[in-house]
Amino acid sequence: MPEAGLRPKQASGGSLPEPWQRWREQRYPAQLLHLDSAAAGRCSVVTLQAAAAHAEREAAAGAYVAEAEAQPILEAVRAELAGLLGVRPEGVAFTESASAALESLLTAWPLQPGDAVAVLPSEWGPNLAAFGHHGLLPTELAVQPDGTVDLENLATVLAASPPAFVHLNHVASHRCLVQPVAEAAALCRAAGVPLWVDAAQALGHVDTACGADVLYATSRKWLAGPRGVGLLAVSDRWWDTLQVRTSPLALASAPADASPVRLLESHEANVPGRVGLATAVRQYLDAGPQDVWLRLAEVGSMTRAALGGLPGWAVLAPGGGSSAVTALRATGGQDVGETRARLLAGHGIVTTAENQARAPGEMTEPLLRISPHVDCTAEELGSLRDALVAMR
Amino acid sequence: MPEAGLRPKQASGGSLPEPWQRWREQRYPAQLLHLDSAAAGRCSVVTLQAAAAHAEREAAAGAYVAEAEAQPILEAVRAELAGLLGVRPEGVAFTESASAALESLLTAWPLQPGDAVAVLPSEWGPNLAAFGHHGLLPTELAVQPDGTVDLENLATVLAASPPAFVHLNHVASHRCLVQPVAEAAALCRAAGVPLWVDAAQALGHVDTACGADVLYATSRKWLAGPRGVGLLAVSDRWWDTLQVRTSPLALASAPADASPVRLLESHEANVPGRVGLATAVRQYLDAGPQDVWLRLAEVGSMTRAALGGLPGWAVLAPGGGSSAVTALRATGGQDVGETRARLLAGHGIVTTAENQARAPGEMTEPLLRISPHVDCTAEELGSLRDALVAMR
Repeated sequence: MPEAGLRPKQASGGSLPEPWQRWREQRYPAQLLHLDSAAAGRCSVVTLQAAAAHAEREAAAGAYVAEAEAQPILEAVRAELAGLLGVRPEGVAFTESASAALESLLTAWPLQPGDAVAVLPSEWGPNLAAFGHHGLLPTELAVQPDGTVDLENLATVLAASPPAFVHLNHVASHRCLVQPVAEAAALCRAAGVPLWVDAAQALGHVDTACGADVLYATSRKWLAGPRGVGLLAVSDRWWDTLQVRTSPLALASAPADASPVRLLESHEANVPGRVGLATAVRQYLDAGPQDVWLRLAEVGSMTRAALGGLPGWAVLAPGGGSSAVTALRATGGQDVGETRARLLAGHGIVTTAENQARAPGEMTEPLLRISPHVDCTAEELGSLRDALVAMR
Repeated sequence: MPEAGLRPKQASGGSLPEPWQRWREQRYPAQLLHLDSAAAGRCSVVTLQAAAAHAEREAAAGAYVAEAEAQPILEAVRAELAGLLGVRPEGVAFTESASAALESLLTAWPLQPGDAVAVLPSEWGPNLAAFGHHGLLPTELAVQPDGTVDLENLATVLAASPPAFVHLNHVASHRCLVQPVAEAAALCRAAGVPLWVDAAQALGHVDTACGADVLYATSRKWLAGPRGVGLLAVSDRWWDTLQVRTSPLALASAPADASPVRLLESHEANVPGRVGLATAVRQYLDAGPQDVWLRLAEVGSMTRAALGGLPGWAVLAPGGGSSAVTALRATGGQDVGETRARLLAGHGIVTTAENQARAPGEMTEPLLRISPHVDCTAEELGSLRDALVAMR
């Protein structure tokens, strides 16, 4: 059981609709008011138990015997994730993180230094760094005033000067911004240019089966799976394109019919985390993905409504619809890092202070990020509002 | 608790010296006869509990709040690992695996395609593949008849045609072979050529504080820590040499005084595993590393003695001393993979079938690997012998 914490803020209240009350009851009581799902969601008790039970089985039977026993679980969750991402089951592979997945994809894709990758101004900073490390040249696509990709301009760019691939963050990490991935995918498909999607903030949050060619994501955010588990997905249209850099040993131990994507899977791995993710995905599917997506959009709208007009803070306007991520700009010169620390230490509220390196093409100042999950109540958002007012 | 398994083979017997009986009692009862520590050791109950408790704390307080709380534990285990590896505490960084650590080191070291890396014929296959992926040219050093590096020849090579670095597997994975790392390190130091050591099989098994310049290892083998945790270590003599490829975001969130090595640490990480490793390392230190090393050497000798003269099998001779890894060659045409499967399914004995890709410069046929930990008894080795005899 968790230790006793600061101040239990998330007592179950009467204001939570039944499915989300159940979501909350599936978890250990929060010791703090957790408004930080874009960093990491809260695992359910059975998710934690599944991971711990596999670790115990590793100790009792041997780690590789236990892993072999868990193959049906791992195959099932790969297939479920494939469905969520819109690829074939053999097109999904586990890695240790979203960033490890991107690195693996950039290594396996036939790219040359100097190749262009089309991105938006809101691109996630570490992705830009990864592109740079591979010698790729990010070129910025035009956006609408709200930060979503300008689809007309995209079509023009795809025809006139097609990049090696287009790269979108389906759901942005630093503010409420959702890209029209299905529409972009259709344009890219017609032009024969692959669309890569960073789905780290999108999987478990919005519909990610949108026709992208390459996707990568993480377990720990909106699916509320364990940390230390990432995944990548490649449409079978591109399997023959992959140049998988593996060792003869890995090849020798892979099934003869393994897809090139599956050969990108890591083997020195946190298997308990993957087994835990299988439980988290099952609970997500049981909750109903469409209901979750709607609820997260609603929670985002609730957050922005609750924090609107707050003295000293401005809510960044949503782009492309509603996500459960909200960013606040300090209008009174407050230090955002200090605000985050005081919210945590003084009020037991967990948020993220974001510096500009998260989205260097767009952010001009630090932001305070609020990212509740489906079980957030109006009362809790009121507590955050009160805390921010009290800290002025 | 672990599920009921096939046939409990490791009932506590009277034949185990007290410290190793305690080592056994720190663990859940083995459901199988586990002779596979070179694949992964069996975590102790408190190691599993530490990892599970951190995962619960992540769920209750938020993953990044929990990680901040765990910093003292992580700093302490980094310092302990640094002592075991012979570097300064700031010279140790966590990764997800030994292979991720090697990849990170190869990326950060100023290497050019075509640079030579001096290796032995017994080099681990996936390492050779990683060198090849970075455009490095493995050049083989001469060895003694037992497979250990020829130190005189090494000195000659270092003087005549120094490679970019020398790379040794301190303890080989595929057979009993231990390299004289301290002696090699002294020669390399005198020549100004860095010595890199793959300590994946060495950490927790032999003395790894031998003066190497770069080391990397894994949690899960002889330290019996969780899977999904690796580490790297770089001597402060080389910190200024590292060209750390990181993102501005990672730089912005690192402490101002972070060493270049610490910047190689991964952050999207299996932190429960790292916290579990801290407990495993503490138990290893409490058991007494020197006693563990001696016991593992003894267990290796016991294994080779127990299996010597077995009809249809030949024990590979040890090289450079005794390790707890023993390899058997099939002399009667048996299929080693099938033998491994039958030992597991029919006798409840966990071993590894090794194909040649593990050490392509040396292995000419598959081998059966036996790698018990400190709690192995003569009776258990007798069971293995009996099973191999019965399978003829």
